[in-house]
Amino acid sequence: MTTPQRNTYAPGHDASQVKHHEWRTAENSAAYLLPHLQRAVQANPNLQLLDVGAGSGTISASLAKYLLPEGHVLATDISDSILARAKAHAESQGLGVPKNISFQKADVHALPFADGAFDVVHAHQVLCHLASPVDAIREMLRVTRPGGGLLALRESDMRMWCVWPEIPALLRFHEVMVRTLVANGGQEKGGRQLVSWVLQAGVRREDVEVSFGTWCYSSAGDRRAWGEAMIERLRTGQMRDKALEMGIATEEEIEGMIRGWEEWIETDDATLGIMNGEVVVRRT
Amino acid sequence: MTTPQRNTYAPGHDASQVKHHEWRTAENSAAYLLPHLQRAVQANPNLQLLDVGAGSGTISASLAKYLLPEGHVLATDISDSILARAKAHAESQGLGVPKNISFQKADVHALPFADGAFDVVHAHQVLCHLASPVDAIREMLRVTRPGGGLLALRESDMRMWCVWPEIPALLRFHEVMVRTLVANGGQEKGGRQLVSWVLQAGVRREDVEVSFGTWCYSSAGDRRAWGEAMIERLRTGQMRDKALEMGIATEEEIEGMIRGWEEWIETDDATLGIMNGEVVVRRT
Repeated sequence: MTTPQRNTYAPGHDASQVKHHEWRTAENSAAYLLPHLQRAVQANPNLQLLDVGAGSGTISASLAKYLLPEGHVLATDISDSILARAKAHAESQGLGVPKNISFQKADVHALPFADGAFDVVHAHQVLCHLASPVDAIREMLRVTRPGGGLLALRESDMRMWCVWPEIPALLRFHEVMVRTLVANGGQEKGGRQLVSWVLQAGVRREDVEVSFGTWCYSSAGDRRAWGEAMIERLRTGQMRDKALEMGIATEEEIEGMIRGWEEWIETDDATLGIMNGEVVVRRT
Repeated sequence: MTTPQRNTYAPGHDASQVKHHEWRTAENSAAYLLPHLQRAVQANPNLQLLDVGAGSGTISASLAKYLLPEGHVLATDISDSILARAKAHAESQGLGVPKNISFQKADVHALPFADGAFDVVHAHQVLCHLASPVDAIREMLRVTRPGGGLLALRESDMRMWCVWPEIPALLRFHEVMVRTLVANGGQEKGGRQLVSWVLQAGVRREDVEVSFGTWCYSSAGDRRAWGEAMIERLRTGQMRDKALEMGIATEEEIEGMIRGWEEWIETDDATLGIMNGEVVVRRT
């Protein structure tokens, strides 16, 4: 069976998506990798890290700080416009561009790099948007250095998502979000399948370290950051367009979801929890 | 409305339940508390910690090691027989009993301790078994020292549970586990409601730190520990008896679930992920 290869990013890079993504740092979104990374940098200060599907690049910039002064991050994405934004973010963080971090357009299905070119390859929430995640893992492994290079992957498990209070419009939002992802050819249960995918890509089980990590939105500031991004996404984002186009939700329902997030932002005892699968693969 | 107060532990303390619980340590089940605990011990080496509903006591003993040499853990449970086992475990860990850790029968609804008697009060997977978790939180707050004492709570969110591969008998197992808990008066969505519960108990939002933590079973050893405990629970535990008694599952289905876990243990790419809500409350 041939699987259609996608080289667009289905959720889009509109303002809502970018804002939501800028909350992300190495500490809140790649903590599972940090102890490995710190050991790797001690052993090799000139460490080369590839960040695949870097988007607005806040995790990339955050990872680059762990590699100072000699290591380097190359952040890739399929979108030129988001890379321009990622570059501006890196500069705002005091990182040298291109000394500490550089940017290049690339498709995860055909990375324009030599075999084994990177000591560490990292991808965050990339595979869940792909119809053929195993092929993408094979390609990322190809550019990972044999003999101890690391491939680090973190993927949402879209079904491992819980909100409190259970405002009906927000439960409906979750359902629409998952159905839109799946309609775009994405994976709704990526987190729990990461081990399975890397084994299908030819990795041995003993070379995989597995964990689950979470995102927690509950403080007033985090509720506002998340809720406003979701509202913008519902007002202007591709999730809105897709859901309407495919008949997954009506305009009236979308208006209800916006009011739902507005209510949730103002609710003192509100929480949102999301679980993500994580693997660190040691390439032999 | 009066809520019936339970002073038995619904899942029971049969061998399967105990075995499963002995996997638990402070590091894999109370990591969210450790930085707070380490700061508290530095400020007050004579720290007094109450562990409520300690069960087989492996987390209690593990926490006691962080309080050495001067601090002390008092571990309570409603079952004498499980406390005897917890005491034996503590002794096997080289802890002085009662110098570093002691044991006392107690009901979370009516703790036999003075107001403000403890610097830190900890409870792990206790509230999800109670019909009235907010009352139990009030009682635990009562015995927490005012002016900076800590109450640390961690609760499963039974719906935030994912298994791979999705063997049908294991999905059925999950459903039966949740329905049995609820039929016993427990809480299926405790993790996401912890903030709400502590606010209902009179805590201010600004005195609560919220997180979500996970359990991950995927390595061959962890799969065996989890899977065998579930099989024993299905063969001889109270979950089996309750499910049969209440007509939630048939004997034939239970046999299927046992075969499901046997298959899962032997599956190289299997994973199980569980998300837990966590709060640290600073008592003012």
